[in-house]
Amino acid sequence: MYGVFAGLVSQLAERYGEPYQSFPFGMMAYGAAGAGGWGSLCGALNGGGAAIGLFVAGEPQRTLLIDELFLWYETAELPAHVPESPILEMEMPRSTAGLVLCHVSITNWCKASGYKAAGKQQKERCRRLTADTARKTAEILNRNLAGQSFAAADFSEDVCGCKACHTKGSEMENSKGKMSRGSCHFSLAGEHP
Amino acid sequence: MYGVFAGLVSQLAERYGEPYQSFPFGMMAYGAAGAGGWGSLCGALNGGGAAIGLFVAGEPQRTLLIDELFLWYETAELPAHVPESPILEMEMPRSTAGLVLCHVSITNWCKASGYKAAGKQQKERCRRLTADTARKTAEILNRNLAGQSFAAADFSEDVCGCKACHTKGSEMENSKGKMSRGSCHFSLAGEHP
Repeated sequence: MYGVFAGLVSQLAERYGEPYQSFPFGMMAYGAAGAGGWGSLCGALNGGGAAIGLFVAGEPQRTLLIDELFLWYETAELPAHVPESPILEMEMPRSTAGLVLCHVSITNWCKASGYKAAGKQQKERCRRLTADTARKTAEILNRNLAGQSFAAADFSEDVCGCKACHTKGSEMENSKGKMSRGSCHFSLAGEHP
Repeated sequence: MYGVFAGLVSQLAERYGEPYQSFPFGMMAYGAAGAGGWGSLCGALNGGGAAIGLFVAGEPQRTLLIDELFLWYETAELPAHVPESPILEMEMPRSTAGLVLCHVSITNWCKASGYKAAGKQQKERCRRLTADTARKTAEILNRNLAGQSFAAADFSEDVCGCKACHTKGSEMENSKGKMSRGSCHFSLAGEHP
């Protein structure tokens, strides 16, 4: 979270001074590893969301930008960024996160790469992923600033079909959210309550 | 997220002025409904985490405080707060969130209450839950300020037993996080990959 948010906004602080300069960037460190290490929302996305929140107050625009960032994260082959001077030199395997949650994103990378979670390679993966997410956030914010329009994403379908029964307007109408496009933990054929 | 963070820090702005007064509180609105409506980390907890991040920079202290807040959220019967002048007058059913994710927290409240997700009762539930989370965050921060120590929570066990195989030091070592104390979507007896 700190990496993406401070990576973007500290550049504005360097270029323009206030009001960016006095922002308490260090506060964003709480978002690491899915917030305090809990494995929930990926810290890079939480930082990207915060940066979008800082610059885009109006709706539905803010949500459209977040949707584009989060959908990109779920489906892109990452990390793509190769640092000039990496902290850890390595051939970096890529994976698709599948979900915006740190817990799932890391597990999917471990499956694809064969590396352990909490190892030095996973930490290097997350550093590079942070750079990718900062870049994507900047690109989205710049396109918005240039007046480009953002199409609403279609969240009406997902692979496991949860939404047919659980979202607004459906039979049970007892769930919310945009996660899990094909990444639910169970399928209807398996252990479904 | 806005509710908890601005609810706490704007009181400091009123009392002390700067540096709180110029904080761009509005940016925190991105965290609503699990960040941009995605259903990931509950916005109230994201705001509580941000407030802890603002005031507690050192580790392991920051993580210990976040752990206490998040564990409370997973297990407490909420919402407990009854507003003097609620936006929606209603007998408010309580539930345990089970997990720090908006998606799961709301679904569990819908199951317990019989109310629909995205209805006016659910919105009132989340408003009151936000007040509860702001109060809990303030209590934790005040205890920390008073020099009370925070014990490390025991995350070595969870009901579904994921950690025996998946966390650091285990056979597969391919997962991270502290979520899912008894709230995983599948059990080993069911559909486990």
